[in-house]
Amino acid sequence: MLVDRLISRIQKTAPIVVGLDPRLSQIPAFLKEEIFETRGKNCESVAEIFFAFNKKIIDQIFDIVPAVKPQIAMYEQFGAAGIACYEKTIAYAQSKHLFVIGDIKRGDIASSAEAYSAAHLGILSIDDEIFSRAAADFVTINPYMGGDSIAPFLDDCRAHDKGIFVLVKTSNAGSRDIQDLVMQNGKNIYSHVGELVSKWGEPFVGEKGFSVVGAVVGATHPDEAAELRKLMPHTFFLVPGYGAQGGGGKDLQNLWCGENFGAIVNSSRGITGAYLSGKFASCEKDFALAAREAALDMKADLARYF
Amino acid sequence: MLVDRLISRIQKTAPIVVGLDPRLSQIPAFLKEEIFETRGKNCESVAEIFFAFNKKIIDQIFDIVPAVKPQIAMYEQFGAAGIACYEKTIAYAQSKHLFVIGDIKRGDIASSAEAYSAAHLGILSIDDEIFSRAAADFVTINPYMGGDSIAPFLDDCRAHDKGIFVLVKTSNAGSRDIQDLVMQNGKNIYSHVGELVSKWGEPFVGEKGFSVVGAVVGATHPDEAAELRKLMPHTFFLVPGYGAQGGGGKDLQNLWCGENFGAIVNSSRGITGAYLSGKFASCEKDFALAAREAALDMKADLARYF
Repeated sequence: MLVDRLISRIQKTAPIVVGLDPRLSQIPAFLKEEIFETRGKNCESVAEIFFAFNKKIIDQIFDIVPAVKPQIAMYEQFGAAGIACYEKTIAYAQSKHLFVIGDIKRGDIASSAEAYSAAHLGILSIDDEIFSRAAADFVTINPYMGGDSIAPFLDDCRAHDKGIFVLVKTSNAGSRDIQDLVMQNGKNIYSHVGELVSKWGEPFVGEKGFSVVGAVVGATHPDEAAELRKLMPHTFFLVPGYGAQGGGGKDLQNLWCGENFGAIVNSSRGITGAYLSGKFASCEKDFALAAREAALDMKADLARYF
Repeated sequence: MLVDRLISRIQKTAPIVVGLDPRLSQIPAFLKEEIFETRGKNCESVAEIFFAFNKKIIDQIFDIVPAVKPQIAMYEQFGAAGIACYEKTIAYAQSKHLFVIGDIKRGDIASSAEAYSAAHLGILSIDDEIFSRAAADFVTINPYMGGDSIAPFLDDCRAHDKGIFVLVKTSNAGSRDIQDLVMQNGKNIYSHVGELVSKWGEPFVGEKGFSVVGAVVGATHPDEAAELRKLMPHTFFLVPGYGAQGGGGKDLQNLWCGENFGAIVNSSRGITGAYLSGKFASCEKDFALAAREAALDMKADLARYF
């Protein structure tokens, strides 16, 4: 099962996923100038810049981390060219044997969820003919619309050996507005959603004790994360919010489950933007090497606490 | 304000939005065959078929309804070509003076929400240069991540005269899984979210008494809709679930607010797929005329109850 293979790779490398969320303002000038000058300022140029940036990052980290997580919003901003770049990034990362978590946070009624799942996890079928395409290994899903909005993704997990991470307790401050509400039975919404995710994932538990139906649990809420870890012993966690969003290695110590880890921690700007500050600053040309160093530093930080 | 202009148009036409959710299985064979034969079976052909279908529907309904709602999942399935078709559909609908509600249901942390909002409501800025692009007038938003995930969209509503519809009580059966949970104070989650939406929308109330921050409230839950209507007197509703999903005109009677309506009702397959069944069946060539007839029938059905 996919989650077993991910855990094996984590055991050999680190419980880290590198977020590929390119922003023009955080891409070295030399990469941008060359492409803008030869091709002009347009969506196609941006897509080319994003891919050049991602490729150099991937080339420097594919042997030390198991996975990357492109945030589709950053690509979607640039229309069709951006989406083509998102797919090209997925294909390139997979060619380097990285697992890809597509951070899409989709959620819709079943007929639309089927289309989203086909778009991002499934196979492309046109008038009964099947086409191959770049699809992520895992995607993130928003649960607000309930079980029937998740079901089509579960079907594709089963059919195509894929996985999902459902939003449970997100890393942002606004997560309190709905996720922290307390129900009549004294439980929070996030615990209830956690139990639903755990139930949806039951048929998908692999050899290492974790389901391919995972949960998004923010590093910025260590107490809630500890509570969810106990409540969902067979759910693998995708943990955003480390680094730039404020969470540190210490905040994560309640998330680990022995040698199988039980979680993978995301860092985006902290790694891909490492060249912009701190000990890596002022070496723009070496932005990808700086990213590698930052990933190794993160690995060391996490290792102190598990 | 945008919502005032939408209401004016509704007063002149009907409180109906036509869902443009193309599926190959529901597109007339003659449209598909011509394009597949000349261009082959690929994403570009599908995009061309979808646009040809949408264009003919739009040409037949633009004078009798105020708005269309493309469901982006259907387009996203076909990658970059699909997204280009989604944008082309928006531009064509707007050229016919239709309002466009982009059914995207996005929701993410602020930095990603900014990118989504820029992608779907905002302007395209590349390295400080501004580009014009096809952007919807309204988009749908998922509130699970809370206020800070909504804020970037509100900024674009203010800056670019746009609007949003936030999911409150959706039309699907699974909406009960989270939206119907009861809190300690006896309120449902959907009422709480409704109150949040109402609060977020306060600074955006137009001359006709409604905010550009609207709510999605399913036609399939008439009691909950009535409750939300009372709770949110200044919130304009986008109402899915009429027709194919089971709701009828009678189920909607609690949603109307006098001459300003207060709601717009979506029908997708019930209109665009009208040629597939009932009194319009067996006239594939006239699928767009059948859609027009179905929209007029829907208008008559709704008129019986408001």
